[in-house]
Amino acid sequence: MALVNENYLKLQSSYLFSEVARRVREYEATKPPRKIIRLGIGDVTEPLPAACVEAMARAVAELGRRETFRGYGPEQGYAFLREAIAEHDFKAHGCDIEADEIFVSDGAKCDTGNFQELLAADAKIAVPDPVYPVYVDTNVMAGRTGAAEDGRYAGLRYLESNKENGFVPEPPRGERFDAVYLCFPNNPTGATATRAQLAAWVEWARDCGALILFDAAYEAFIRNEAIPHSIYEIEGAREVAVEFRSFSKTAGFTGTRCAFTVVPKNCMARTAAGEAVALHGLWNRRHTTKFNGVSYPVQRAAEAVYSPEGQAQCRALIDGYLANAKAIRAKLESLGHACVGGENSPYVWAQAGEPSWDAFDRLLRGHQIVTTPGAGFGRCGEGYIRFSAFNSPETVAEAMARL
Amino acid sequence: MALVNENYLKLQSSYLFSEVARRVREYEATKPPRKIIRLGIGDVTEPLPAACVEAMARAVAELGRRETFRGYGPEQGYAFLREAIAEHDFKAHGCDIEADEIFVSDGAKCDTGNFQELLAADAKIAVPDPVYPVYVDTNVMAGRTGAAEDGRYAGLRYLESNKENGFVPEPPRGERFDAVYLCFPNNPTGATATRAQLAAWVEWARDCGALILFDAAYEAFIRNEAIPHSIYEIEGAREVAVEFRSFSKTAGFTGTRCAFTVVPKNCMARTAAGEAVALHGLWNRRHTTKFNGVSYPVQRAAEAVYSPEGQAQCRALIDGYLANAKAIRAKLESLGHACVGGENSPYVWAQAGEPSWDAFDRLLRGHQIVTTPGAGFGRCGEGYIRFSAFNSPETVAEAMARL
Repeated sequence: MALVNENYLKLQSSYLFSEVARRVREYEATKPPRKIIRLGIGDVTEPLPAACVEAMARAVAELGRRETFRGYGPEQGYAFLREAIAEHDFKAHGCDIEADEIFVSDGAKCDTGNFQELLAADAKIAVPDPVYPVYVDTNVMAGRTGAAEDGRYAGLRYLESNKENGFVPEPPRGERFDAVYLCFPNNPTGATATRAQLAAWVEWARDCGALILFDAAYEAFIRNEAIPHSIYEIEGAREVAVEFRSFSKTAGFTGTRCAFTVVPKNCMARTAAGEAVALHGLWNRRHTTKFNGVSYPVQRAAEAVYSPEGQAQCRALIDGYLANAKAIRAKLESLGHACVGGENSPYVWAQAGEPSWDAFDRLLRGHQIVTTPGAGFGRCGEGYIRFSAFNSPETVAEAMARL
Repeated sequence: MALVNENYLKLQSSYLFSEVARRVREYEATKPPRKIIRLGIGDVTEPLPAACVEAMARAVAELGRRETFRGYGPEQGYAFLREAIAEHDFKAHGCDIEADEIFVSDGAKCDTGNFQELLAADAKIAVPDPVYPVYVDTNVMAGRTGAAEDGRYAGLRYLESNKENGFVPEPPRGERFDAVYLCFPNNPTGATATRAQLAAWVEWARDCGALILFDAAYEAFIRNEAIPHSIYEIEGAREVAVEFRSFSKTAGFTGTRCAFTVVPKNCMARTAAGEAVALHGLWNRRHTTKFNGVSYPVQRAAEAVYSPEGQAQCRALIDGYLANAKAIRAKLESLGHACVGGENSPYVWAQAGEPSWDAFDRLLRGHQIVTTPGAGFGRCGEGYIRFSAFNSPETVAEAMARL
C-alpha cells in the first residue's frame, strides 16, 4: 500500500458542525414540541439578488449558443470581474490594488486553506483562538504541527481573543512568525478591529517579517465608517498582507460559489538563503496548476454584484441580516448576557454563564434553537455561544420570543 | 519575510501553453495571410447540450426565490448527482461503485493535482512520458522531486510511452512505487489501453503496493466496446485505484466546471509503521476542509447529462469531435505521418518527421494552423505534434485542406 501523509492522522476527528448536526438529529428524533430554529451554522437563507440571478441566467443562455459559448476562461478570473472588484472594493476605498492582483476562486475556504502551501514546511504560524477551523486544520495537514492536546496543536501559536482584549489580540511582540491569520469582522466572535489595531498588526508584520493572511469574508457587514473594510486601507500593508474576500455572505453566494484573493505584486516571502520571492508569482503558479477558473455564469453573477441594482440589492440583503443581529444582541443583553458582535457582523458572541455545550443543549432542548457552542472554536471560546443572524426576520423574532 | 516553499522554485518556468500562445501572438502581429485555425489546446468549441442549459437555467431561477433557495450544499456533491453518476457511469458498466464513493468537484485538474496531498512527502511516484504536466508539477510543489535537468525532475520515475510499446507503458516490474498516474484515453497521445493492459497494471499495483491514480477524463470518446471506460471494470481495482472523471469533454463543461473523483471505501494506504488507512476517509477530510462544494446550478447541469435527452445530446457532441479526429488522422496518414489516437479519443498524435517545435512553427507560419508540440509533454514527445479535434467540422475541414 502507498505511504500515507501521516499528518492527516493528527487531525481531531470530531468536527464541530458534524457534532452539532448529530445532537440536533438525535433531539429531532424525540419529536420536539415545536419547530427547531437554526441560528447555528453561518449559511445564508435569503435568495440571490435579482441582478445576480438575471446576469447568471443570461450567461447560461450564452453557453447554449455556439456564437457566445465559452470554454476555459482565464484561471485567475475574467477581466470583467477582476476589474469590477479592483474598482469597487479597493480603489473606491482608497486602496491601491490592481485587477491583476486579484485571483477569482470558488471560495474563501479554499483560498484560506490553500494559501499556506506557498510557505515552507517549517514556517511558524500564529492563529487566533477562537478560530475558524480551516486555518488550523490545513496547517496540520501540511505537517506544521505536532499532536493535539487539550484541543491545541503543538507548534502553532494561539493568539487569545477574550473579554480582556475586546476579542482583538495584540501582536505577539518579541516572537518571530512567518504568518498570522487574522479575520475581521471576526468569525466566530463578530468582533471588528479598529484602524489603530490593524495598523499595529501591519507595523508588527513589517518589523518581524511575518505575512498577514487577512480574512475579510464579512467586510460587507461593516456599517461603522471608522472601521476599515480592507487591510490595504492601512499604509504599508501591501508588502506584508494577502486578503481573502468572498461573495458568500456579501451576496448570498454560499451555494453559488465565488470568492477572491488579493496578492499584491510587492508582497514578498524569502528563501532560507534570504532571497526575496514575490508571492504573486507563486500564487499564480499554484492557481493555474491546481485550479481551472470559476464557472462562467457564476462570474457573471458576481460581476452583477457591482452594478447599481446589485449594490442596492446586496445592501438590502445585509441590512436585513444586520437587523436580525441587532435584535438577537438586544434580547441576549436584556437577559444579562454580555455580548460582542451583532454590529458590523452577522454573528453575536454571547457569554453563556455556563459551559458552551451545556448552553447549546439547554437552548436546543429547552427552546428548540440551534446555536454553535463557542468551545468548538477553541479554548477561548469555552463559556460562549455563537448566534448567527442568517435567517428571516420572522424566524429570528420567533426565536427571540422563545427566550 | 515569511519562509517560502522552495519546492516551487524548482518548477520549470516555461509552461507549454503559454509558450504556444506567445508564438501565436508574435505571428499574428505579422498579419498572416488568412485566419489562424486553432487545433492546439484541448478546449471544446461547441455549445452546452440543451438539456444542461435548461437544467441550469431552472436551478438559477430556484436560487432567486426564497422557497427554493439553496445555500451550502454537501461538500461531496448533492445526492441527486452522486447517485446519477454511480448508476450510469459505473453500475451500468458492471462496476461496483456506490454514490458515497463519488466526490463531486470543480475539475479533474484540481482533483488530479490535489490527490497527491494524501501521500507521504517521500512517496515514490511514477508518471507517464509524455505527460499531462499537472501530475508532475503538483508533485514538484509538494517536494517529492529534486531539480529538473533536461526536462525531467530527479526523484520521479518516467514511464516511457513510445512507438515500441504502442504508447502504453508496461508496469515497471521489480521496482516499488507508492503511486502511478495513468491516463486512458491518453492526453496527449490519444492512445487507449486494452482490458489486458489495464489488468496487468492492476495486478502489478496489488503486488507492489502502489496506488493507481487513473485519469479517465476522456472516457466518453471510447466507441470500441472492447476498451474499458473505467479502471473498475478490472477485477481487483477497487483496492488499488482512484479514478478521476470530468464533464469538461463529455458535455462541454470546460467553462462550466464540474468533475468527480471516485475513492472506493476499501482502497487503502498505510503508515510508515504499516497500519492501513482508508483513503476514502482522508479524501473526505481534505474535500470538506479545503473545498466547499460545486455551484448548485452547475450540479443540476451535470445531472442533466444523465437524462435521456442529455445522453443523446452528449453522444452527438462527441460524435462530431470524433468525426473531426478521424478526418485529421486520415489526412495526416495520407501525407505519410504515422499516427496514434484519433479513434476513441479527441487527440491525434502524429510523427512530425522533424523536431516538434520546428513542425509547430512550420504549421503555424506555413499553414496558419496552431497545434501543440509533443516535446512540451516530455522527452518522449519530441518529434511528435498533437492535433486536437475540438472544433467545428467546417473549421477542421478547412485546416485539413490547407495541408
